[in-house]
Amino acid sequence: MKQIRLGIIGFGNVGQGLAQILRDKHREYAEKFGLDFRIVAVADSQKGCLFDPQGLNPVALLEKIARDGSLAGIPGEKKGWDALALIRESGADAIIELSYTDLKTGEPAATHVAEALQQGKHAVITNKGPVALHYSRLEALAREHNVQIGFEGTVMSGTPALRLGRELLAGAGIRRIEGIFNGTTNYILSQMDAGAGYAEALAEAQALGYAEADPSGDVEGFDAAGKVVILARLVLGREISLADVEREGITRLTAADVTEAREAGERWKLVGSLELDGERLKAAVCPRRLPLSHPLAGVNGATNAILYGTDLLGDVTLIGPGAGRLATGYAVIEDLLAIYRG
Amino acid sequence: MKQIRLGIIGFGNVGQGLAQILRDKHREYAEKFGLDFRIVAVADSQKGCLFDPQGLNPVALLEKIARDGSLAGIPGEKKGWDALALIRESGADAIIELSYTDLKTGEPAATHVAEALQQGKHAVITNKGPVALHYSRLEALAREHNVQIGFEGTVMSGTPALRLGRELLAGAGIRRIEGIFNGTTNYILSQMDAGAGYAEALAEAQALGYAEADPSGDVEGFDAAGKVVILARLVLGREISLADVEREGITRLTAADVTEAREAGERWKLVGSLELDGERLKAAVCPRRLPLSHPLAGVNGATNAILYGTDLLGDVTLIGPGAGRLATGYAVIEDLLAIYRG
Repeated sequence: MKQIRLGIIGFGNVGQGLAQILRDKHREYAEKFGLDFRIVAVADSQKGCLFDPQGLNPVALLEKIARDGSLAGIPGEKKGWDALALIRESGADAIIELSYTDLKTGEPAATHVAEALQQGKHAVITNKGPVALHYSRLEALAREHNVQIGFEGTVMSGTPALRLGRELLAGAGIRRIEGIFNGTTNYILSQMDAGAGYAEALAEAQALGYAEADPSGDVEGFDAAGKVVILARLVLGREISLADVEREGITRLTAADVTEAREAGERWKLVGSLELDGERLKAAVCPRRLPLSHPLAGVNGATNAILYGTDLLGDVTLIGPGAGRLATGYAVIEDLLAIYRG
Repeated sequence: MKQIRLGIIGFGNVGQGLAQILRDKHREYAEKFGLDFRIVAVADSQKGCLFDPQGLNPVALLEKIARDGSLAGIPGEKKGWDALALIRESGADAIIELSYTDLKTGEPAATHVAEALQQGKHAVITNKGPVALHYSRLEALAREHNVQIGFEGTVMSGTPALRLGRELLAGAGIRRIEGIFNGTTNYILSQMDAGAGYAEALAEAQALGYAEADPSGDVEGFDAAGKVVILARLVLGREISLADVEREGITRLTAADVTEAREAGERWKLVGSLELDGERLKAAVCPRRLPLSHPLAGVNGATNAILYGTDLLGDVTLIGPGAGRLATGYAVIEDLLAIYRG
């Protein structure tokens, strides 16, 4: 049995989802993979910091958070620690960076990941920022220190979109990628297809917690564009920035547009895409009217999907969740299994 | 650059597809993966046998076959060799077994694979027979001789259905598998959905080369059942036989049934399934009427699909080709990349 000590930075939805998975599946992973995952430290800038070199009990962590939203005042509390102290002093083998995501600077996550790699620890991230903005630098650090970075959760949460493209289809000749990379806008479009107006559908998405109070990151296509940048780098090996992605959101789509499409046997989807035309790479996020026979047309609600257009297999499509605490928590597990199953 | 010598047994559609891939992508694989794949020997019981320790030229192989359907009479011919001689004497690092498939005995492929493993060579198969009938014995041999067996092509050709379940979703808690595992029947049902009668649709499938003169292996569900047996073993770790799969084909479906489903907004699909109910595993292949919102309902023509129902991600669906010379040839490449990329 191999013991793997995890240090978690950020204990919001995803961190709690990960704790829940380890609470429920610790024994299964031990039996099936011979891996004994232990959370030795948690640091959250709002909720406090805990440390136990023998492993914190996920049940206790989750109960404390559910009870009073904080980790303060229970055994193992480390009052002086912040994220960097956790990375340097917890003795964790892998750092799970789940703090705030920022597509403008990638901070503070990028600094945390860089520090972890420099300390010779594997790092797993589910935030787009550090990968979209700093991947080359972080990859070089990982190589230098002979450790790995896990990033499956940055696109389509735990649905293995990146590993499918980077590993399983690596020799198939990927020429084109198309996908539904944002669940909020897909939910809104599905509601509009069922008869709702844009404002009503957006309000529903907000009520369900899919969309934030300021929904522009989703509805203007910035979130999807961040994922397109990551796919360009990690699947196609092409370094592009957000500014290289032609971007149009869904705010100009009207109920009449949606009705017109439906009557023509088609559906509007916000499609993120990458297309190789010789050496030229075209990157875009924009609403597209797809015939119902298109593999992305039937993907409804908050579900995400990715289509790889390949030389040898034609189109291969993967459909699954794009968000959610367990789904994103599982992305971390997937990265850890890839690192430690060897 | 790592040189990998391949010995190919069976030079029909898939073998020629593999040669075509290596003709077109040899340089790409060398640059991208540092792997120099060379076909050092080919043995086909009908077409003859060739050997060149420096590597046979795929262009010459394909031209010769296209010209006169045989490998006889060109440089490198080995008149005395059969498959076993190739395995023992060609110096190949990996044996690609692509000979005739037989779901009753798994022979002669199983004997070839066993011999390859005993000689310390990796083996890759795309035929269901040896995996459905002899997997445990072959796996034990592989372990004993510290080599690997590749079998991605046995389900959904190069669409990575098996690796998705065995590796990427290995920790997600797979409780249910549903899929369209037979392209011929899916093509027939799609044609019926578009208005054709069963006999007419079957004749079209035969004209296109999807269905054989005796179509019972497809239309009675035996082919799909073989894949269900493989998925039970390789994804769920449960040893079952064909007799454990409740099986009903599509021959009893009438045009009226299909019309009735269409009018109700549903579609008939031949669904292979595995469902865990506590410790009990239910295995079946039978026609099911799916609502259009079901991820398998929109999979039309000869395309295949697999849905994994999981604890942590809910449903994850992969859609792609289920047959074809390049698609199945790519399954071999995928297995080789998994073995040699390390």
